[in-house]
Formats: sequence, C-alpha cells, structure tokens
Amino acid sequence: MPAQDETLKIDKNSNVLMVAGSETDANIYYASHFLAPDPFIYLQTKGTSYLLMNDLELDRARAQSDVAQVLPYSKYEAQAKSSGIESPRLSDVLSLFMLEQSVSQWIVPANFSLRLGDALRKQGHTLLTKDEPFFETRALKTETEVEAMREAQIAVEDALDSTLDLLRCAEIKDGLLVLEGETLTSQSVRRHLDLALMEKDCIAQHTIVSCGVDACDPHNEGSGPLRAHESIIFDIFPRSNKTRYHADMTRTVLKGKAPDALKRLYDTVLEGQLLGVSQVKKGVNGREIHQNIMHCFEKKGYKTGLIDGRMQGFFHGTGHGIGLDIHEPPRISKADHVLQTGEVVTVEPGLYYPNIGAVRIEDMVLVEDTACRNLTTYPKFLELD
Amino acid sequence: MPAQDETLKIDKNSNVLMVAGSETDANIYYASHFLAPDPFIYLQTKGTSYLLMNDLELDRARAQSDVAQVLPYSKYEAQAKSSGIESPRLSDVLSLFMLEQSVSQWIVPANFSLRLGDALRKQGHTLLTKDEPFFETRALKTETEVEAMREAQIAVEDALDSTLDLLRCAEIKDGLLVLEGETLTSQSVRRHLDLALMEKDCIAQHTIVSCGVDACDPHNEGSGPLRAHESIIFDIFPRSNKTRYHADMTRTVLKGKAPDALKRLYDTVLEGQLLGVSQVKKGVNGREIHQNIMHCFEKKGYKTGLIDGRMQGFFHGTGHGIGLDIHEPPRISKADHVLQTGEVVTVEPGLYYPNIGAVRIEDMVLVEDTACRNLTTYPKFLELD
Repeated sequence: MPAQDETLKIDKNSNVLMVAGSETDANIYYASHFLAPDPFIYLQTKGTSYLLMNDLELDRARAQSDVAQVLPYSKYEAQAKSSGIESPRLSDVLSLFMLEQSVSQWIVPANFSLRLGDALRKQGHTLLTKDEPFFETRALKTETEVEAMREAQIAVEDALDSTLDLLRCAEIKDGLLVLEGETLTSQSVRRHLDLALMEKDCIAQHTIVSCGVDACDPHNEGSGPLRAHESIIFDIFPRSNKTRYHADMTRTVLKGKAPDALKRLYDTVLEGQLLGVSQVKKGVNGREIHQNIMHCFEKKGYKTGLIDGRMQGFFHGTGHGIGLDIHEPPRISKADHVLQTGEVVTVEPGLYYPNIGAVRIEDMVLVEDTACRNLTTYPKFLELD
Repeated sequence: MPAQDETLKIDKNSNVLMVAGSETDANIYYASHFLAPDPFIYLQTKGTSYLLMNDLELDRARAQSDVAQVLPYSKYEAQAKSSGIESPRLSDVLSLFMLEQSVSQWIVPANFSLRLGDALRKQGHTLLTKDEPFFETRALKTETEVEAMREAQIAVEDALDSTLDLLRCAEIKDGLLVLEGETLTSQSVRRHLDLALMEKDCIAQHTIVSCGVDACDPHNEGSGPLRAHESIIFDIFPRSNKTRYHADMTRTVLKGKAPDALKRLYDTVLEGQLLGVSQVKKGVNGREIHQNIMHCFEKKGYKTGLIDGRMQGFFHGTGHGIGLDIHEPPRISKADHVLQTGEVVTVEPGLYYPNIGAVRIEDMVLVEDTACRNLTTYPKFLELD
C-alpha cells in the first residue's frame, strides 16, 4: 500500500482521477461543471482535463461541460475487446487510457471506490488518496461563487419572511397557532417555506421547523403543532437549482410572550453569535472563535455536557464551510483551522436545554482580510411582533 | 490484495461495514432507516446491527433508526486516546470496535472509501468489496415498498395531469404555446410540475420537459419556448420526502397537429413499449426484452447508430431498477439479467431522430410470477385534445 502523503496538493499539472455521479459528488461537479445522475469518469493530466462518457451523454457533455476533451468510453471499451478482453470492466477501460497517457500515478479523492482502486492497483497503477479539501481552491470562493450563494441567501430570506408573516397572522388558541381555522404545524410551515424556495428555483430538503423540546435536538426537523410562548427554530439550507450553491440561515422566533429564562437564553446566544461574527477574519484560528463563544456561554452560567442522560448546552461546532456541499471544509470547531480570505463559513452557535428551550442563530459569512462580509441580512429577534 | 469473491452474498450473519451519509447513499439508508447528511458508521455482525454515532446525532439515531444498538463514537474515541493515540482517526475508532467484536473480515460496498480501506487494511483487517446490488433484498420490493412507489407515482400522474391542462388551455401563436399572454417554456412548465410534486411532498430534480430537437438528447432537461406541432417529452422522477422511494414516468405529447412522420414514430415507440411491458415477468431475460424492442423498431425501418455524427434511433437501455435510488439494479438492456418476482423496473424505449423528433414512453412495473403489475395508470396519447 503506498504511503499517504499528507501534503499532497492538486494543481493544473497534477494527475487526477475521479469516478462519481456529479449529483452527489461536489468534487467531480466542481472540476467538470457537468451534471449527470450516473457515475462518469474525470481525468486530468499534463494540464488537460478529460471526460470518458458513455454514448448517451457524449453530446450533452461536449455541449455543457467545462472539460477540455470529452472522449467516448465506447472507444476504449472497443480497444479493450480487440485486445482480447471479452467483457471489459471500468478498470480495463481506465487502464487503457492511463497507458495511452503513459502516466502511472494518480491522485484520487479519499472516497474513491475501494473496489475500483483495488482493480487499478492490480493492473499496476499507483493511486494516492487525498482527503478533503480535495481541490484546495474549492474552499476559496470566487466572486461568482459568492454571488451565487448570496442569490440563494436572498431566496432564503424572502421565504422566511413570507413564512413568519403566517405566524404573525395566526391567532393563539389553547396555546396553539391557528390561521384561518387551521392549526399551524412544523410540517405545514415547512411546506410553505419549501414551496417559497422552489418558486425561487431553490431545492430545500430537511428544512428544520422545530418547536420547544423537539428543537433541543439540533437535527430534529420538527413535527406536530407549533406552540405559543415556546421557541421555534427555522434552519433553512437549500441548494440553488441554477448554480448548485447553497445558502444556510437559522433564526429562532417565538409567537406570544417569551418566558424570562428563554429571553435570557436568546440574548446569550445572540451575544455569542455576534462575538463569533466579529472575530471571523483571515488568520484567526476557528478553534479560538469556538472557544470564545463557549466561554461567553459559560460565563453566563450555561454549561455544556451530559445532563440527565442527554447532551445539553452548546454541543455542536460553531460553523462549517458551505458551497457546492452544505457541509464542506473548513469547520469552526474544537479542531484547529486558520481562516483564509475567500472561505465562506457559517457562524451558528446554539444553546439547548429541554427545561428552557432551544435557541440557534446562524449567519453565512465570507472571510476577508480584516473582517468578514456577512452574506446574511435578515434581522434577529425572538418575539414576533 | 484479497481476491474478490463474485458470489459474495449478504445475510443476517454477514459482517458488514458501511461509512456513508444516508442522504446520498441508499444502502446505508436501507440498512439503518436513519437519515443524516453527514457520513456515519453502520456495522452488522453476529446478527446484530450497530451505529457508531457522534454525540450530536446520538439521541435522534436511537429514536429514529432501525438499528439494534446505537453506540457513541466518542466512547471508542476516548478508548483510543487512552491507549496513546493523540488524535484518533476514523480507522482507529473502527479498529477498536472490530477488535472488541473479534471479527477481522468485513464486507464493504464497492464504493467504500479507498482511503479508509487502505487504513483499515494497514491495521490488519480484511475488507472484501461487493458490487451492486450490495443487499440482494434491496432489489426485491416488499408490499410496503411497492405501496410507497405507487404513492409517489400517483403524485407524478396528478402533477402531469394539471400540467397538461396548461398546455391544453394554451393558444398557438406564431408556432409557440401562449397561456394568458405568457409563452410557455420548458422552464416555466417544469416549475409548475415540480411545484405540483412538492405539494404532494415529492422532491423532483432535473425533471425533463424538452421539445423538438432538444428532446433528441435523452438527458437534455429542455429550455426555451415550447413549440406547437413538435413532440414534447415529459420525464418525471421525483423522490417521496416521506418514504424516500422514487417513481418514474415518461410521456410524449404534442400541442397542435402531429406531422405524419412523427405520428408513425410515436406509434412505433408505443408498440415497442407495450411489447416490452407484456414480456416482463419472472424468469425472462431482460436482454431478450431489449432485443425484441430493438427488433420491433428495426422492422419498421428505425435504425440505431451514429448518423451524421450523432447517436440516433434507440440508443439507451429499455429500463432500470428503481427504488431508493432512481437508477438501481437490475437493468433491462444489452446485458443479461433474469427478472425476479419483486423487482420494480421501468420500461422506457425511445426513438430519437433530429429530422423527425423524439418519442419516449415509460411505465414503472412490478415483476410478478406470470406477468407484471403496471404501477403506472396514466394514459398514453400524442396529440393533446
């Protein structure tokens, strides 16, 4: 097994091999700008990029992809057959291409298929795996990428705005939110949000609209009636259909009157979140930002850990990189990461106590040299007017 | 490198290891019924299934997953630390669990991470890769799974119905379709379809609404104004948000009057499609069905191959398995596959000639002992009344 080189970097002259479907694998989409549901082959060597495509996708790949050369998979398959392989496999076809290029050592993503990797190595090729970020440049967003994320963010803010209007218009009856005779639920409000996003050509999945104790589990999507006087977390993170970039925003609101303990919890999370945003800039270690927020919470008496058999307090990271994937490097967390200009990250601390409620507030920000540019403009408030 | 055993089967007593996010990997979702965006660990050994989860997902996994034991990743991470590993990696944590189980040989999916595979093998574990279908049972749908797909199919048919009403109501002006002063486009009609699907809690992506020459590339999603007297292909294949199962249907329609050549093309595809559906049953080889349709087309004079530098005729497979993935085994194509009771497959031949137009017709059917059960009930017609 070849040694893994932790300092492996990819540049124009690297030999890169990927086999994946670009619907689910952001690296092959980033490199090819070609969208296809089934796995396809991307290669890069000697400064030229290639796709090996099946006949069905050949014309579309030539028209739509960013890749220099789109070659027919069937050509190499036929070569393999004429060399005596009855039913050529993917590894046989790839091997022919690699031999044609006289290149035997390739960098592949960490998630490259073990089975295909075994087969290629058996044929004498060397594959070096590289962890995320596979392409260093993916973390450093261009102005075009930032623009795409800001566009998705506008859709998120518009969708939340029209959704909160529903809550504003609702009446409180027996502690529940009732609008035009219907009780508002996590599901119905999520439907409204997701439809509003689709109107703006954004695909939302697993949008969180969770209330009260449900929201104390940060990944609970929420279900059942929304209740007055309890906090409701909206965490909205769609992908733009047009650009494939994501936006991500969380707001915590409440219909009715907030109990004092919840108000104090909200103010504390807001203080921590603003502290975090104020510290994001080039050269700062994300670990310090995370620790500073944790410290801010602890100073106010909000402890984190296992309490009564469940995790309570601030028990997730402060933020994550975002782009073609909803979660991508870097993280702002307990782990070391020195922020670089061009990274887009979320800042989303939260506090979760089943006996008080849950609060999370999240903005998406662009790291710049001397500060961050907040790509989120939506106001922050707990009680709906 | 261990030999690959092509006859590897997975049953309750197999040792299985998967590490993946269940949003994008249907196998880990199938095994765990737990939905999470970030990769998690599934293991199965000695008849018991396990998840190793991070603290953030622990409670939710215990409440929602189908897995016998949900264990905290952090417990093994702490063990690894106390054994002297400063920053334990995923492979260190997995290795501890494997040693605890005294099991050294595991079956992993073909798409298992090469990097993680290398690391585990380095620690002395044997990993055998298994191609799709990873779980043989995934191809054989239960009544509940068929019901879920039928439910999604009803949403597809309702959405197409309301969409075709738009086309019916449109007027033809200068060869374009105009409704209430607006020219209907692939994009606007797709938006209508996707919104109608979302109303039924189905997420559609890359719905095809393509007209004329665009449609001659089977994966072209379509763009620009819809034109009268040309065929328009609707290929609709959403995932149900509720069950995660897909439906898939294609219809080809036309507003205005079909040219004779296009009418004849439509009738031929319909004949081939009905022939295909009539032949689907247990024990039949999909290759024969595919060849029979191809033969039916050739008899009518419709050739397949490279014509004027582009693929024309019937140059894709007849159908594919469908379920948690939109494309999953088996295929009905040039490759051998003997159909089994319980498989759900599409039957979707098409003919594509830029000088005539494009026609594809697709139903989703369940393989049964003596015939197939057609899960699609939508009528087939070319000209809109």
